[in-house]
Amino acid sequence: MSDLAARAERLDAADGLAGVRERFVLDEAVYLDGNSLGALPANVPDRVADVVRRQWGELRIRSWEESGWWSAPERTGDRIAPLVGAAPGQVVVGDSTSVNVFKALVAAVRMARETEHGDGGRDEILVDVTTFPTDGYIARSAARMTDCVLRPVTPDEVPGALTGRTAAVLLNHVDYRTGRLHDLPSLTAAVHAVGAYAVWDLCHSAGALPVGLDEHGVDLAVGCTYKYLNGGPGAPAYLYVRRELQERFDSPLPGWNSHADPFGMREEYEPAKGAPRGRVGTPDILSLLALEAALDVWDGVPIEAVRAKSLALTDFFLECVDAYVPAGRVQNVTPVPHEQRGSQVALRCPDAGAVMERLIERGVVGDFRHPDVLRFGFTPLYVGFADVERAARVLAEVLAEVTGEVRGEA
Amino acid sequence: MSDLAARAERLDAADGLAGVRERFVLDEAVYLDGNSLGALPANVPDRVADVVRRQWGELRIRSWEESGWWSAPERTGDRIAPLVGAAPGQVVVGDSTSVNVFKALVAAVRMARETEHGDGGRDEILVDVTTFPTDGYIARSAARMTDCVLRPVTPDEVPGALTGRTAAVLLNHVDYRTGRLHDLPSLTAAVHAVGAYAVWDLCHSAGALPVGLDEHGVDLAVGCTYKYLNGGPGAPAYLYVRRELQERFDSPLPGWNSHADPFGMREEYEPAKGAPRGRVGTPDILSLLALEAALDVWDGVPIEAVRAKSLALTDFFLECVDAYVPAGRVQNVTPVPHEQRGSQVALRCPDAGAVMERLIERGVVGDFRHPDVLRFGFTPLYVGFADVERAARVLAEVLAEVTGEVRGEA
Repeated sequence: MSDLAARAERLDAADGLAGVRERFVLDEAVYLDGNSLGALPANVPDRVADVVRRQWGELRIRSWEESGWWSAPERTGDRIAPLVGAAPGQVVVGDSTSVNVFKALVAAVRMARETEHGDGGRDEILVDVTTFPTDGYIARSAARMTDCVLRPVTPDEVPGALTGRTAAVLLNHVDYRTGRLHDLPSLTAAVHAVGAYAVWDLCHSAGALPVGLDEHGVDLAVGCTYKYLNGGPGAPAYLYVRRELQERFDSPLPGWNSHADPFGMREEYEPAKGAPRGRVGTPDILSLLALEAALDVWDGVPIEAVRAKSLALTDFFLECVDAYVPAGRVQNVTPVPHEQRGSQVALRCPDAGAVMERLIERGVVGDFRHPDVLRFGFTPLYVGFADVERAARVLAEVLAEVTGEVRGEA
Repeated sequence: MSDLAARAERLDAADGLAGVRERFVLDEAVYLDGNSLGALPANVPDRVADVVRRQWGELRIRSWEESGWWSAPERTGDRIAPLVGAAPGQVVVGDSTSVNVFKALVAAVRMARETEHGDGGRDEILVDVTTFPTDGYIARSAARMTDCVLRPVTPDEVPGALTGRTAAVLLNHVDYRTGRLHDLPSLTAAVHAVGAYAVWDLCHSAGALPVGLDEHGVDLAVGCTYKYLNGGPGAPAYLYVRRELQERFDSPLPGWNSHADPFGMREEYEPAKGAPRGRVGTPDILSLLALEAALDVWDGVPIEAVRAKSLALTDFFLECVDAYVPAGRVQNVTPVPHEQRGSQVALRCPDAGAVMERLIERGVVGDFRHPDVLRFGFTPLYVGFADVERAARVLAEVLAEVTGEVRGEA
């Protein structure tokens, strides 16, 4: 056994979260794609079967009340809340991340304008140019529909780009490609200093590290639930609206589910108080209750412990890659300082697509992101240190093979 | 056995769709709420279990390709298409009805303006004032965000309200409260005559009667899938964009799923061709694949046969109510002429809430709609004529009891 393999064994033995792995359905593969689709929590299949067979099949329409379907968006939101540092009553689950970005950005612009007093108004939205593309596309639409100018900037450029014209800023907590963790507290403070509103996309951070939404005064936030929250494919996203801002949250999608009296069937719209104001149409019950069940895996798991293990896993992976992979064969694009690192490692290499295919064939599942990135997500709830060592070892083997073939062809 | 009960027996014996009931999970109750939540198709539980256990639990991320997750919105849309009279490639499934109303109305306004040539533009949206409220709320938001005026009118007033200023008209095919079927062909033609665009909400018609979207030149349409399409609680809605208009469909929610090259992760948005242009974020796979399975119940079932049975059921119900319920005790608000009737019967009575509670206790499940409507939906795939006779008979019994109590209290 190599030194690193022995180290991995010791680290796994000392891992306080090691037992959480049993709450998931896993196999022999090293699954490093939980940052794209989280593994299946073991309690989900039976819960979903009950929702389908009994709640829908037997109780049918009565389940809207009797099975708690109607209140599921808020109830599930309150399960996510502690993972992102939010007190209850501020998170609601529903719709996709893209749709929630639209709600949040438009509402943020409206808030920014509401507090203006004849100084010419605010007409700019700043958006992280390195963002997952959908945020940029939706931000452009939000800007177009609120008569704003969209200014794409890198997160580093944000402080310098903020002015009295800035209405809202859309930022990613962790960059989906490089895994870089941005400084949420200081960027939020900078946005507030010019009187603008901060919208954070937590897709790649929630469930992997503490977010501290309440603590850091974030205004609005959105995130998906199918990555580190393991809610299942396309599980509904969530929207956080800071309590002090809820009364001013003016949704561009005021569906009947966000009405103060949804069953009053009134012609005039009167928005609900609190988190339900972020709802739109009828909630997607199958997916929502699968997510609710999936959140059971967090029972007794402090997010701080998850963060500590996440950093230990990514540190160890970088160390193993350094040891096993010939220098220069891959380039790490994930920041090394802990305060700038999410829960993934992204390695650039020229033939990344082919390399990832081989890795998957050999039971190391990461993903490929255009044009040349190998992305490995480390989900502390079910990834261990031996997995990490194996992944780096197999990567080195595959890189040697692929290089050999390329040479052979030349 | 009463004459009506005997008639029911003969009608059931002659019913060519009677066997379809076996494709559903049902019990002894008469379920007349399929216009709110369709019953569970018998093949859905196993399909959902496979999606959860094998596709998510074992194949995990590979299922986006291998299990056809990525293409499910269009594939499922093409299963709905024949039920609403649409050729393939024009219907896409995803998001809620409310969100799709927003997409469709904003896109319709943009199309209307695009075809204008300096004549002052179009700045009005007409909306059915009797609509299910969410359509009105969303229409108001769409108007606000496109600098339009919202004009609520009754469907009868629409032809007189159309002018050169009209950009788009949002109409319901069947009124959710009264069950009135509106004249889609002539209203669509009237909208087109002034150069405006027609958006139809099919929530209460799709799956109950032929819609003929292509035949009647409808521009855009939306609908839910959890009523007559039996897709399950909160199952995703669908959006129809007429083929000739797809190139001009300019979505206010241009998420990454609607990009021409979604995995290219490009900064610039380039909309996909065809139905995928109506997509937004990651599709909700559990609900979507439950819906896809649910659509199997339509195999070999012509929508024309469903319509014929639907009218026979509602005719028979009205006849039984006339025979069993004392005159004046309830008032039918559903139109009697076939060409104006959907697949439900709405009866007004002063104590409708209490009456519906008693009905449900006695195994006749309809629903109550504020303030005084008893609503009975007739789903031809699983409701028979004996069910209808029983429902009317139990209704008469309950009305006699509730009246007696009210008198006793006086």
